[in-house]
Amino acid sequence: MKIMITAFDPFGDDTINPAQEVMKRLPDIYQTSQIIKVLIPTVFHKSATYIEEALKQHQPDYLLSIGQAGGRSAISIERVAINLDDARIPDNDNNRPIDVMIQQTGAPAYFSQLPIKAMLSKVNEKEIPAEISNSAGTFVCNHVMYQSLFLTNTKYFNTKAGFVHIPFLPSQVLNRPQYPSMSLDDMVVGILACIEAMILYYDREDLKLVGGKTH
Amino acid sequence: MKIMITAFDPFGDDTINPAQEVMKRLPDIYQTSQIIKVLIPTVFHKSATYIEEALKQHQPDYLLSIGQAGGRSAISIERVAINLDDARIPDNDNNRPIDVMIQQTGAPAYFSQLPIKAMLSKVNEKEIPAEISNSAGTFVCNHVMYQSLFLTNTKYFNTKAGFVHIPFLPSQVLNRPQYPSMSLDDMVVGILACIEAMILYYDREDLKLVGGKTH
Amino acid sequence: MKIMITAFDPFGDDTINPAQEVMKRLPDIYQTSQIIKVLIPTVFHKSATYIEEALKQHQPDYLLSIGQAGGRSAISIERVAINLDDARIPDNDNNRPIDVMIQQTGAPAYFSQLPIKAMLSKVNEKEIPAEISNSAGTFVCNHVMYQSLFLTNTKYFNTKAGFVHIPFLPSQVLNRPQYPSMSLDDMVVGILACIEAMILYYDREDLKLVGGKTH
Amino acid sequence: MKIMITAFDPFGDDTINPAQEVMKRLPDIYQTSQIIKVLIPTVFHKSATYIEEALKQHQPDYLLSIGQAGGRSAISIERVAINLDDARIPDNDNNRPIDVMIQQTGAPAYFSQLPIKAMLSKVNEKEIPAEISNSAGTFVCNHVMYQSLFLTNTKYFNTKAGFVHIPFLPSQVLNRPQYPSMSLDDMVVGILACIEAMILYYDREDLKLVGGKTH
Repeated sequence: MKIMITAFDPFGDDTINPAQEVMKRLPDIYQTSQIIKVLIPTVFHKSATYIEEALKQHQPDYLLSIGQAGGRSAISIERVAINLDDARIPDNDNNRPIDVMIQQTGAPAYFSQLPIKAMLSKVNEKEIPAEISNSAGTFVCNHVMYQSLFLTNTKYFNTKAGFVHIPFLPSQVLNRPQYPSMSLDDMVVGILACIEAMILYYDREDLKLVGGKTH
Repeated sequence: MKIMITAFDPFGDDTINPAQEVMKRLPDIYQTSQIIKVLIPTVFHKSATYIEEALKQHQPDYLLSIGQAGGRSAISIERVAINLDDARIPDNDNNRPIDVMIQQTGAPAYFSQLPIKAMLSKVNEKEIPAEISNSAGTFVCNHVMYQSLFLTNTKYFNTKAGFVHIPFLPSQVLNRPQYPSMSLDDMVVGILACIEAMILYYDREDLKLVGGKTH
Repeated sequence: MKIMITAFDPFGDDTINPAQEVMKRLPDIYQTSQIIKVLIPTVFHKSATYIEEALKQHQPDYLLSIGQAGGRSAISIERVAINLDDARIPDNDNNRPIDVMIQQTGAPAYFSQLPIKAMLSKVNEKEIPAEISNSAGTFVCNHVMYQSLFLTNTKYFNTKAGFVHIPFLPSQVLNRPQYPSMSLDDMVVGILACIEAMILYYDREDLKLVGGKTH
Repeated sequence: MKIMITAFDPFGDDTINPAQEVMKRLPDIYQTSQIIKVLIPTVFHKSATYIEEALKQHQPDYLLSIGQAGGRSAISIERVAINLDDARIPDNDNNRPIDVMIQQTGAPAYFSQLPIKAMLSKVNEKEIPAEISNSAGTFVCNHVMYQSLFLTNTKYFNTKAGFVHIPFLPSQVLNRPQYPSMSLDDMVVGILACIEAMILYYDREDLKLVGGKTH
C-alpha cells in the first residue's frame, strides 16, 4: 500500500510548522506500507497544484494531509471540508479570499474518506488525546482537504483522502503558556496510529459509514 | 414579509432553553414584517416534521431557527449544515443516531441562505458580540438547519433558511461561573438585528455571495 | 452607612473601563447607605494616594474597589491581596515594577474584609454569575486591593475594604468574540447585590469567617 | 545538596496522579544533589504530618512539592500560598473544610522560597511551556505549600520550600479532549529543569527577590 502524507510550510507568525516536523519524523516504510512525503505551500490553490502533481506521480492508496490548529489540545481528525475560502489573514502568497467558492463544479462539501472513528480509537489506544472535528475552518487547511477530496471524488478514484489537525508544539507556546500543546513524540505516535487504522480498514466496505462517509 | 422563527424546548440537564426565552420576547410585528413563532421538539426528524408543517401553513419568506450552544460567548451565525447525525447524548425522545445520513437524496451540505455577514455587522452595530460559525455540530441543531435547507432547496423555494446559535443565559451558569453567558436582553436585541439585516438584504441578489452562498 | 466605591480609568488597549461605567450608573443613595464614588488612576502607588485622600475625607464604613478582569466570565469577588507588584505591561504612567514588595512593613497578604460568600449568594440570587477568586493578579488591581487593606488594617480601622473584578463589556469584545463578556445592566445589578450583602452583614461578627477573614 | 520532592497519591475521579508518575521517574542523584522522594496523602493536615516527619528525618536543603492542576496547560510554578482551606470537594479522608484557617499562628500567606523566575527560564530553555501562578487554590495543594512554608519559616530554617503544579497527563484526558495535557517525558524534563535552577541559585542572596520573596 502507498500512503501519501502532506504537510505545510510555516505560516503567519510561526517559524515552524508542527505538521512538517511530524512528517520529517515519519519512517519511509511503515508496516506493509510505503510512506511518501510531500511538502506543500500554505497558499490557496497553489497547494492543490502540488497535491495533484504528487497524486499523478505516485498514485497512492491514501492521501493524508496534516495541518496545525493552534489552540486545539488533541489530535483532531477532520470529518468534512466545505466548498469555501474565507481568510481572516493572508496566506503565504498574500492572497486573502473572502467568501469565495473553491470549485465551481464541486459539491458543497466532501466528507473524509478515511476511517475517522477507527483512527480516533487507535490514537486513544496509544493514550494520546484525539477527537473528531466537524470543521477544518475556512483557511488553507480546509482548502487543501476540500481540493484533495474534490480530486479523489472526481478524478483520482483509487485514492482515499482526509485531513488531520495537530496542536501547537510545546516550543511554540513558551510565550503564551495558557495555550495547549502536544509533544512531537506524541504527535508522531498519534499520526502513526492514524496510519495503522487506515491500513487496517482499507478494505472494509461495511465500515464505510464509520467514517461518516455519507455518499 | 413573513419571517418564521423556531426555537427548541429544553434538552439535556437544562430546564430552560434560551432560544425559547428569546422567541417569547420577540414582537409579532417587527418593522415591515410579521414574525411567526414555532416551538419545535429537541428530537431528530420530529423537529423537521414540525418545521415542514409550519412552512406549508405559513409560506414564510424567511425561516430562522435559533438554538443554544453552551460554552460559546457570542451570537454565533451558522454558515453551513452537514448531512449527518452523530449524537453524543440522546435527544428528548431518547434517539441517539451515530454516523447516520439525514437525507439520502440531500446534498452533503447546504450553506445558509441568510445574509450572514450582513447579520454579523448589524449585531455588532448594536454592540453585541457575534461571530460566523463553520459548524453547527452533529446534534439536533445541525439536523434542523440541514432539514430546513433541504426543504427550502428542494420544495419550498420561496423561503430562505438559516440558523443562529446563542450562548447560555446567565441563570444557566450560576453553578459553572467559568462558562460564558449573555443576557436575555442582549440576545433579543441581537436576534432583532439579525432580522433587520434579513429584511434589508432580501432582494439584493448581488449580495448573495455575502452569505457564503456557493451554489 | 457610608460606602466608598472606586473605579479605574481605562488602561492598555481599552478605551473604556467597565468599572468606571458601572460606577457612573450606581445611585448616590442605596437603601440606607450613601454611595461615594472615587475615580482612581491605573497607576501603581498614585492610585493608593487617591484612595487614602478619599478615606481621610469621607471616613466610609466600607471601601469597595472595582476593576476589569478581561477574560473572566463572572463577577469575581476577590478573597486576598498579596504584597507584590509584578507587571507584565506598563501602567498608565509607564511604571513597570517587577517583583517589588508594595509595603515594607505590610503583611505578606491581606484577606478581604467584606462578607465575600454572602456577596456571592446575593449576586447569584439576582441570577447573575459570580465566583470567589483567589488571586487578583500582580498588576494595579492587586496593588489597590493590597494598599486599601494595608490602610484599613493599620490606620483607618473603621473602614472595611475589598475588591471585585468584573468581565469585559460586550462592546469590548466585538473583535474577539471568543472572549466572555457581561452586560452593563447585569454588572450594575451584581455590584448592587454585593452592596446589599455588605449592608446586611456589617454587624454580624459571627459571620466574619464567612468572608474567609482569617485574622 | 539534598532535595526532597513530594507528590500526592491520586484524588477525586482520577486513578493516577501525574505528580506521582513524575516523581517515580526522577533519578536518585541529579547533578550534585541527592533526590529524596516522599509520597504524601491527598488529605488536609495528614499530608503536613508526613512532610514534617520527612523534614525531620532528612533535613533537606530544598523541599519541592508537586501537584496536579487539571485544566492548566503549562508547568505552573506557584508564587504564594495562603492561610486558608476552602474545599469544593472532599479530600481522600472525606474532610471538607470551608473557610478554615490552616495555622492560627501562621502568616496570612507565605511566598515561595524557590528561585521561581529562574526556574521559569530554565524550563523554557528546555522548550517546555511554563508560567508563574499567583494562586495554588484553596484545596490540598495550597494546604501543603502553606504548611511546608510555615514549617520552613518557623522551625526548619535550613530548608527552602515551594510548589509546582503540573497539567493532566495525555492518558487522563482521552475522554475530555478539549482539556490540555503534557507528556510525562516533558514533565520530567521540566521538573529537572526546576531542580537545576534551584541548585544553581541556592546561594545567590542577591537573587532572593527574584523569587518574589518579600520578607
